[in-house]
Amino acid sequence: MRPSLLTDRYELTMLAAALADGTAGRDCVFEVFARRLPHGRRYGVLAGTGRLLEQLADFRFGDAELAALRAQGLTDPALLDHLSAFEFTGDVEGYAEGEVYFPGSPVLTVRAPFGQAVLLETLVLSILNHDSAIASAAARMVGAAGGRPCIEMGSRRTHEEAAVAAARAAHLVGFGSTSNLAAGARYGVPTAGTSAHAFTLLHDDEAAAFRAQVEVLGTGTTLLVDTYDTMQGIRTAVEVAGTELGAVRLDSGDLADLARQARALLDSLGAHRTRVTVTSDLDEYAIAALAAAPVDGYGVGTSLVTGSGAPTAGMVYKLVERDGVPVAKNAEGKRSVGGRKSAVRRHDASGTATAEVVVPGPITPQEGDRDLLVPLVRAGRPVHDLDPAAWLRSAREHHERVRAALPQEAWALSRGEPALDTLTA
Amino acid sequence: MRPSLLTDRYELTMLAAALADGTAGRDCVFEVFARRLPHGRRYGVLAGTGRLLEQLADFRFGDAELAALRAQGLTDPALLDHLSAFEFTGDVEGYAEGEVYFPGSPVLTVRAPFGQAVLLETLVLSILNHDSAIASAAARMVGAAGGRPCIEMGSRRTHEEAAVAAARAAHLVGFGSTSNLAAGARYGVPTAGTSAHAFTLLHDDEAAAFRAQVEVLGTGTTLLVDTYDTMQGIRTAVEVAGTELGAVRLDSGDLADLARQARALLDSLGAHRTRVTVTSDLDEYAIAALAAAPVDGYGVGTSLVTGSGAPTAGMVYKLVERDGVPVAKNAEGKRSVGGRKSAVRRHDASGTATAEVVVPGPITPQEGDRDLLVPLVRAGRPVHDLDPAAWLRSAREHHERVRAALPQEAWALSRGEPALDTLTA
Repeated sequence: MRPSLLTDRYELTMLAAALADGTAGRDCVFEVFARRLPHGRRYGVLAGTGRLLEQLADFRFGDAELAALRAQGLTDPALLDHLSAFEFTGDVEGYAEGEVYFPGSPVLTVRAPFGQAVLLETLVLSILNHDSAIASAAARMVGAAGGRPCIEMGSRRTHEEAAVAAARAAHLVGFGSTSNLAAGARYGVPTAGTSAHAFTLLHDDEAAAFRAQVEVLGTGTTLLVDTYDTMQGIRTAVEVAGTELGAVRLDSGDLADLARQARALLDSLGAHRTRVTVTSDLDEYAIAALAAAPVDGYGVGTSLVTGSGAPTAGMVYKLVERDGVPVAKNAEGKRSVGGRKSAVRRHDASGTATAEVVVPGPITPQEGDRDLLVPLVRAGRPVHDLDPAAWLRSAREHHERVRAALPQEAWALSRGEPALDTLTA
Repeated sequence: MRPSLLTDRYELTMLAAALADGTAGRDCVFEVFARRLPHGRRYGVLAGTGRLLEQLADFRFGDAELAALRAQGLTDPALLDHLSAFEFTGDVEGYAEGEVYFPGSPVLTVRAPFGQAVLLETLVLSILNHDSAIASAAARMVGAAGGRPCIEMGSRRTHEEAAVAAARAAHLVGFGSTSNLAAGARYGVPTAGTSAHAFTLLHDDEAAAFRAQVEVLGTGTTLLVDTYDTMQGIRTAVEVAGTELGAVRLDSGDLADLARQARALLDSLGAHRTRVTVTSDLDEYAIAALAAAPVDGYGVGTSLVTGSGAPTAGMVYKLVERDGVPVAKNAEGKRSVGGRKSAVRRHDASGTATAEVVVPGPITPQEGDRDLLVPLVRAGRPVHDLDPAAWLRSAREHHERVRAALPQEAWALSRGEPALDTLTA
């Protein structure tokens, strides 16, 4: 089935009613933004745009989708005619994938007749909310790791397809590799992994398991040493693989203490270049707490794929203009600002970002302003090549540049205000 | 691509090493269980088994998958030969989908040669961890709603495919409907939805929007009344639709207070049968807090699809037997019990569940014991018909029966101990 069914029913009932009363053709602007950052975070990272544009290109209603709608009672003939001819012909612009965002940042803007734009709400939000939640958490982990490599290994803790998107989002913000083979295949994310406790338990003893692994993967492999007794496991590992053993992995216990013991033992055995990788229930705080420990890499699972306490980015898709007229609802706690927004990031003379400027209408540029809205789709056609691996590489580079321009307070892990104020006038 | 790439790389490196040293053929038993329930929950609900069995039937490595592995450096000829001939021929048994579980419950058991069983870890855990997290949260919401209908509408807050699985999991435990059209198409979940604020804003005024909606969807529809002024919205709704209006929806503000005001106003206007549906940021606690308010239905989004604070079930997939020998690791904080388990639920004379009994080896049945392990796959073939809609209906009925037998304390929303003790001897 095509992505067109990844849609909420109310979009089709609204469309049916708008077709009947002639409003479906009204020129509309919908904006995607987050009202706030979760949990006192200092910034968010926009992710998923590339995935969205791939799926938008296939957003059609063929026979299978139309039959599925009929079976659910959506039988209005004008609606089904409209859908069978549906093709997105509008414009999309937005923040570049990998860009950071703040409350109110218009991260995506869709301009199209209501009868087109209304259908995209669920798919747009599903992809951006999920992928941005993961990227935003992952960016904090990369910051906490302070240059030590991070491996994404959370596939088992989230929906099987969300796992692929999570691996992509983590790589976008600086994770070096993932355990997920599909993410390697689809997006060119480097994949990593060697063995689990089951492999040791499969064998008659730990030495036999280590020998089997080294035989096939070479002495540069990572041996998991905590199945029985960690220090004895390290001795056995070096006995089997020699002092050129690539790494040992610690997956349980007090990681800071064990890493110190492991380092000392490895050094005493002459395995000075053998790295120590840790992997048990890490999040950005646990990573930061290990900064002083002799750790050479972090494997992160559950916290990464669940957004470290913020599993969704809370972005909304709101109608802000209809036939050129700004519109906004007045619902309590959910008020919004009408009118299509412009957005720039302001920087000081040293190149450090100082503010997010988001206003309806044009912005008179100042020295150091960078326009944040880039064209993504023009008259239904993608502006850029959508090759998934090339897109991700480019987004990763963009994120690295953007991140380097953020002020120091953005890297605080503690709860606080967004690192940049959003100026709305 | 087939589900075989939804796999962690280490499963293939372990397999390559096991093929090389001859251990890949060892007869293995892997068990799936959760060490604990999240957040002081009283029970968990197993979900995803039907989805898993569907994907297991397609778990093969064809040319596309093998090429993707080669491109990632997995070029070991013996490994690729093994994968190209791969077909799961083992046995799977487990708790019925929709069954409740407790810490240590062996919710799935896979028996197969290591070279087969090792490959299933990620897919098994991704599906069961995600779907069980959603079902476990949703079941608490259904309990808190006390018979009032719940609508699942969280698609926009989670990965686009996770959204479909979440809608399925919510229906499994008693949600009446979902907004997600794909869940309707794939699993027969009833779909629901009428309109968003954008539809009102699209129109010149609220009355025009309501007229358009009632024209196409009939007076039985649900009108969203809080775009501008909620009480005025209700007056306009009844003016347009008459006193037979199906429902009004409140999506902002103090819902208990607004529901009371809305009910009083509807009654004063003669719309006694018009229902009041509420939908803003609900979770099980907010639903419970509305028990005394005149609310006729709950729409639940974000909290549902993110597991209401517990977005993953934390299940693990552990080797417990190898060639008939119980095995277990000794890693700190992650110790497990070796040996293939049996599991029964014990009940008192009134039919109320009193304990979960999980022991290695057989259990001598007592009066009131129910065997929890049912056959799912025999020699690689599914034991039951996997038709997705029929499977879900049957799982939903099973859940309802199981739930009725739980002791009263299972329904407490507060944090506490599991509702049943797990007896391990």
